[in-house]
Amino acid sequence: MAQPSAKPTPLLKDELDIVIPTIRNLDFLEMWRPFFEPYHLIIVQDGDPSKIIKVPDGFDYELYNRNDINRILGPKASCISFKDSACRCFGYMVSKKKYIFTIDDDCFVAKDPSGKEINALEQHITNLLSPSTPFFFNTLYDPYRDGADFVRGYPFSLREGVPTAVSHGLWLNIPDYDAPTQLVKPLERNTRYVDAVLTIPKGTLFPMCGMNLAFDRELIGPAMYFGLMGDGQPIGRYDDMWAGWCMKVICDHLGWGVKTGLPYIWHSKASNPFVNLKKEYKGIYWQEELIPFFQSAILPKECTTVQKCYLELSKQVKAKLGKVDPYFLKLADAMVTWIEAWDELNPSGGDSTKLPNSTTK
Amino acid sequence: MAQPSAKPTPLLKDELDIVIPTIRNLDFLEMWRPFFEPYHLIIVQDGDPSKIIKVPDGFDYELYNRNDINRILGPKASCISFKDSACRCFGYMVSKKKYIFTIDDDCFVAKDPSGKEINALEQHITNLLSPSTPFFFNTLYDPYRDGADFVRGYPFSLREGVPTAVSHGLWLNIPDYDAPTQLVKPLERNTRYVDAVLTIPKGTLFPMCGMNLAFDRELIGPAMYFGLMGDGQPIGRYDDMWAGWCMKVICDHLGWGVKTGLPYIWHSKASNPFVNLKKEYKGIYWQEELIPFFQSAILPKECTTVQKCYLELSKQVKAKLGKVDPYFLKLADAMVTWIEAWDELNPSGGDSTKLPNSTTK
Repeated sequence: MAQPSAKPTPLLKDELDIVIPTIRNLDFLEMWRPFFEPYHLIIVQDGDPSKIIKVPDGFDYELYNRNDINRILGPKASCISFKDSACRCFGYMVSKKKYIFTIDDDCFVAKDPSGKEINALEQHITNLLSPSTPFFFNTLYDPYRDGADFVRGYPFSLREGVPTAVSHGLWLNIPDYDAPTQLVKPLERNTRYVDAVLTIPKGTLFPMCGMNLAFDRELIGPAMYFGLMGDGQPIGRYDDMWAGWCMKVICDHLGWGVKTGLPYIWHSKASNPFVNLKKEYKGIYWQEELIPFFQSAILPKECTTVQKCYLELSKQVKAKLGKVDPYFLKLADAMVTWIEAWDELNPSGGDSTKLPNSTTK
Repeated sequence: MAQPSAKPTPLLKDELDIVIPTIRNLDFLEMWRPFFEPYHLIIVQDGDPSKIIKVPDGFDYELYNRNDINRILGPKASCISFKDSACRCFGYMVSKKKYIFTIDDDCFVAKDPSGKEINALEQHITNLLSPSTPFFFNTLYDPYRDGADFVRGYPFSLREGVPTAVSHGLWLNIPDYDAPTQLVKPLERNTRYVDAVLTIPKGTLFPMCGMNLAFDRELIGPAMYFGLMGDGQPIGRYDDMWAGWCMKVICDHLGWGVKTGLPYIWHSKASNPFVNLKKEYKGIYWQEELIPFFQSAILPKECTTVQKCYLELSKQVKAKLGKVDPYFLKLADAMVTWIEAWDELNPSGGDSTKLPNSTTK
């Protein structure tokens, strides 16, 4: 197996896991082989645990199905969604690496305008390893890219930037539209390659899509809970949105950055808009109340860790969103369970992970 | 003169003025002829008023030199900078049109990646005539462009957008760097064409460059004061920055949008970094206090017009920035003078333009 190769060691080879939620054989990995093969994969099998998921030869992976999740988490497994790609967050929890890249199994390698295949993972790593600039907007976009810098009028005291917690990538071909937009524009394809990475400013929320996403697990992992979706829940397709809103409020509070833009992946097929509408319709009106809630959420100074922030947020969800629908009471409880489970599996996750009703760990 | 032509009427032909500050013959207009010739130009001649500025044949223009400014504004001419391109804002004041496009005379027509010449003015008009989305970030950038839309998770209640007050265009070739960055990176050129227009989110400040800028004069004109720069002042090259920070605070307060991105112009030559350093150095440390000031500036509800907002801001400048340097006391007074002059030249500019110590108009 040892090749006398001059290939450079892939970036963060031993510090990053690729998390893939799936219900099918992972043939899509063939196209990603040159980019993903050096990395470890965490596959979260959704749906029927007796089904065998085939993974192409040569990939290094661990696979968890529902039985594994139940066995590992016991009663706390209730916080992990079933029959929804929200289950992917279980992979974040069992990873032992500093960084996570997560991708959907209908996402393929895209090409840049010159026709070159885009190594999405490498771009995410570049995004995560360079600082963010959430406090002031740079009109030439990411000032740390080659050929770019801070423009005239950008305060020098802010040019060091802050740590980047999340890198949100985009999609060519099938855009990430909601069901109503899918229904109205069934033929719309995203063909515009925007050669930019930018920091989403502090205080600004955005719709985080889980299809092509990377983050610093050590920094922000406990906030990346994808909520209760799918089987037995009144809603679907808001898992990544929920995580994105919670994560952004916490990053803003703790002074970390969130980037969006490059890299693109090729999103191959649109999901069924009728099915999506059924999953989404409650979310479509709930989000009208969720956005103002998250926009006005304030975390107290005492919230000095992600866990503390997240538990505080769960209290505010219970207090303020419980009246929107009882679902949010259940979700608030699941947020607490998630943190408990996270800390159980990641016992060294900081000295500040004390949970309600636990005096020692 | 009447040609039997099938050419469509240029957009906003009778509703937009092009404002150009200059100290030299306007040969640069030759390259812009196909795009600018149908429009009216307002040329603000800086420096020696006895110098004759040549304008290529065929352009429709009015030209103001310092003598004209002094004659038209009388004592209020003190608010218009001399020997600095900040004098351009006089052109905004004397215009009678709804929209302004302003461009520097060292800016030429850029080409897009396909090699096509970019009609910068047309793109600015497109930006101004379509709404902005300051309350939530759309990851596919301007949702109103062809082939784009709002993505999943974008609240439907926000999809109408808000009126766009300002369109900030960018520069290929010579980037708009401050003197220290010019000195450190003398050879850096901007070659990256980013095919995006985006709304700068509410609550986020940015460095607005006056080189390639358009705005809705009826909406935001009185906030586009370029301050006191140049001759007799301790600072230069912060004119557009100042206008941008004031304007953004006011747009955020009044619920209007500011876009940045396309169109690009070709910025032909870098100004002298040593001269720039002399002009900028006070600004470089002052801006460390200016940014927090503008970030925390709050306008009261009673400020329902741009004029009211601007006068309130001038009070806050006097109260809070006066201690940074006495220059800001003078600038605060000039801000008031600017509004008085604006309202004198634009008497129908709203029923709310009452000035301090004036009970009738």
